[in-house]
Amino acid sequence: MRVEILCLGTELLTGKLNTNIGYLGDRLASIGLDPSLVLTIGDDKAEIEKAFAGSIERADVVIATGGLGPTFDDLTRECLAAALGRKLELNREALSAIAGHFVRRNVEMPKSNEKQAYVIEGAKLLPNSHGTAPGQLIEIEGGKGKAKKPSKVIVLLPGPPQEMQPMFDAQVFPYLKKFETKIKKRFTLHIFGDAESVVDEKIRPIVEAERKLEAGTVEFGILAHKLIIDVKVSVSGQNEMLVDETINALRNELQDVLGDSIYGQDKQTLEGVVADLFVKNRKTLSIAESCTGGLVAHRVTNIPGSSLYFRQCAVVYSNESKIKVLGVNEDTIKNFGAVSEQTALEMAEGMRNKSLTDYAVSITGIAGPAGGTPEKPVGLVYVGICGPDVKQVFRYNFSGGRVEIRERAANQALDVLRRELLKGKKHG
Amino acid sequence: MRVEILCLGTELLTGKLNTNIGYLGDRLASIGLDPSLVLTIGDDKAEIEKAFAGSIERADVVIATGGLGPTFDDLTRECLAAALGRKLELNREALSAIAGHFVRRNVEMPKSNEKQAYVIEGAKLLPNSHGTAPGQLIEIEGGKGKAKKPSKVIVLLPGPPQEMQPMFDAQVFPYLKKFETKIKKRFTLHIFGDAESVVDEKIRPIVEAERKLEAGTVEFGILAHKLIIDVKVSVSGQNEMLVDETINALRNELQDVLGDSIYGQDKQTLEGVVADLFVKNRKTLSIAESCTGGLVAHRVTNIPGSSLYFRQCAVVYSNESKIKVLGVNEDTIKNFGAVSEQTALEMAEGMRNKSLTDYAVSITGIAGPAGGTPEKPVGLVYVGICGPDVKQVFRYNFSGGRVEIRERAANQALDVLRRELLKGKKHG
Repeated sequence: MRVEILCLGTELLTGKLNTNIGYLGDRLASIGLDPSLVLTIGDDKAEIEKAFAGSIERADVVIATGGLGPTFDDLTRECLAAALGRKLELNREALSAIAGHFVRRNVEMPKSNEKQAYVIEGAKLLPNSHGTAPGQLIEIEGGKGKAKKPSKVIVLLPGPPQEMQPMFDAQVFPYLKKFETKIKKRFTLHIFGDAESVVDEKIRPIVEAERKLEAGTVEFGILAHKLIIDVKVSVSGQNEMLVDETINALRNELQDVLGDSIYGQDKQTLEGVVADLFVKNRKTLSIAESCTGGLVAHRVTNIPGSSLYFRQCAVVYSNESKIKVLGVNEDTIKNFGAVSEQTALEMAEGMRNKSLTDYAVSITGIAGPAGGTPEKPVGLVYVGICGPDVKQVFRYNFSGGRVEIRERAANQALDVLRRELLKGKKHG
Repeated sequence: MRVEILCLGTELLTGKLNTNIGYLGDRLASIGLDPSLVLTIGDDKAEIEKAFAGSIERADVVIATGGLGPTFDDLTRECLAAALGRKLELNREALSAIAGHFVRRNVEMPKSNEKQAYVIEGAKLLPNSHGTAPGQLIEIEGGKGKAKKPSKVIVLLPGPPQEMQPMFDAQVFPYLKKFETKIKKRFTLHIFGDAESVVDEKIRPIVEAERKLEAGTVEFGILAHKLIIDVKVSVSGQNEMLVDETINALRNELQDVLGDSIYGQDKQTLEGVVADLFVKNRKTLSIAESCTGGLVAHRVTNIPGSSLYFRQCAVVYSNESKIKVLGVNEDTIKNFGAVSEQTALEMAEGMRNKSLTDYAVSITGIAGPAGGTPEKPVGLVYVGICGPDVKQVFRYNFSGGRVEIRERAANQALDVLRRELLKGKKHG
């Protein structure tokens, strides 16, 4: 089964990030339908028509996103109709659904939106509950020009992820799942605290071990980003029990060699894992940030329900605010500097005392681009933690620009909290 | 001149965001070499070879990113060599540059990195000062199979943006600029505070006006994201003076109808514009955040030099911290709720008094998914501002999920600050 994806829209070629490729690629890979090719094309009629014709010729499943809007540069419907040699027909059901969106918003439907109700002859309509553009699913027999091939499927979906994703999950994924020809299972382990080369060395014997998996394959991948290292494993084969066994065995072997450096799996995030630990242990948290400027608190409060354990954060950017808000000693800053082990410790202590939380974490450092010195270069960051059984400061030298240093420092602060709460879990 | 881009790497098909497409697309468009097609392909030898052959056949310029690393799944060099029918040769200059990276890090060069020093016959080496993978530039006459075409160019660049971007800018862009066949100039206006339909209506007469531009074209585009609306304009033609005149005229016309809703142009950000206004007016800022949880402070401190005007932020997530840290009246929260006009006002007032800054902005709202009621639904957000001549609260109803509501609220808070400081500028 060959799958190709077409991403349509000039904005995708001039700066707008395309999250649809990753979303669809990941979902499709989970049922063994990994896309072979993704084409990204601007709003150009001839290019889109040619791309549709080529993809339909080569692939069994073609999924196109974007270009279903109401304006002149939304060309997907007519280009596919031309490539297939089929007509576009006004679909009453689609029209009333589109009109409904405007009725609910108490706005008159612009004439231009009628265009969105035109559907390719023989297409199945895919309702869109988050926008006006309905999707379409077309089953055809054989490619153009060549000898008849087995039936092909073409799916049209809107471009905005908040519309595309629920439509794909509810209406397209279950339909495609029936084309699944082999069992494929995957997992990703997220690691923090080991360098990529260290992870590589630790897992190498597992990666290189010969495995007998009847008519199946095992694939490994390592990806590093912002100090986080992902180890990806996928196992495919014909026999589900055998695939499951291999998946479980590999997960156990990797957990044995990587230990607590694994903070989570698959969709888990560092802040999500920290949230779970705080809630389970019934502990509370406050944060004192300098160079990260609110990023740690932002990450923590991204998790719904964070008010269960997170109380407050002070972004103390100026020296004065470190002294006034957190009670850092003026002499500490004078003698050791705002970026120092001593200041980091007093920030965490001060925050914990003022907020009366179980734990406080502090971050102070030099994010750059200016402010570095030979003794204290850009990238120097201290993370302090204060809790019932801990009063400690860690020192780091991060590489990268301002944005990366801040992101790395935030990840590091979250990991310091995670490891401290894991200790509590083990002792308790 | 037809340009095609090949993005190589399985990770791009399974979740990793590809920033290279946007970066290259934008840079190329600035010299009128807009890419017609972008192909994204996994680490599959047959697919990559086929894609190279096809792109070289169709396009005048082919740029490939990724797959230049040292491991078994880095296939770009050998696939292009196969597609061109040329040999790969060990390049001494490349080898010593790669070895140099390891010498500087005081590490022995792994044998596998030698692979990166193999260069296609006749290729020009593109040094990489941020990583081990050198790029390559190949000029060829005519496509494969068909009649001779004018000379073609193939460029190989590494995948990581921090390596790819400086190499493209310094070594490839100036080279391609000589192929520029027409003048193309562009600008983007960023708008906040008007709905997309309102912007559309305001600019429609300008978009629809007939323009006489000898052998040239004017293109408009509108893009909305997180309440920000971008109006993109590009003008191309043979005569630079004429193109410049049209660009300037259009900018003026758009500024006239959109006024203060335009917060910036091109690379400017809301937080950057706010920073400029604070620095120019020599005013200081403090922030009190509830539902945005530190995002506004994070955005503000993303700008280098923000310590010039930003003093501190309090993320007061719990009611207790609103009372203790900012001095919000307990009865205010009891009588009106933590998400109310009154609480927003007292948060801003309290923050300004405690921090002694010129301005304080406050944000309190319901980001969801839980916590909404019929009177106070998810998405209800209050933004308060307190300053020398202002004490005001604004009320909003944002749509979207938790992440979008928080991002919209942060944008809104920054815009409230911007509009207040603009007033000061006009009066002063």
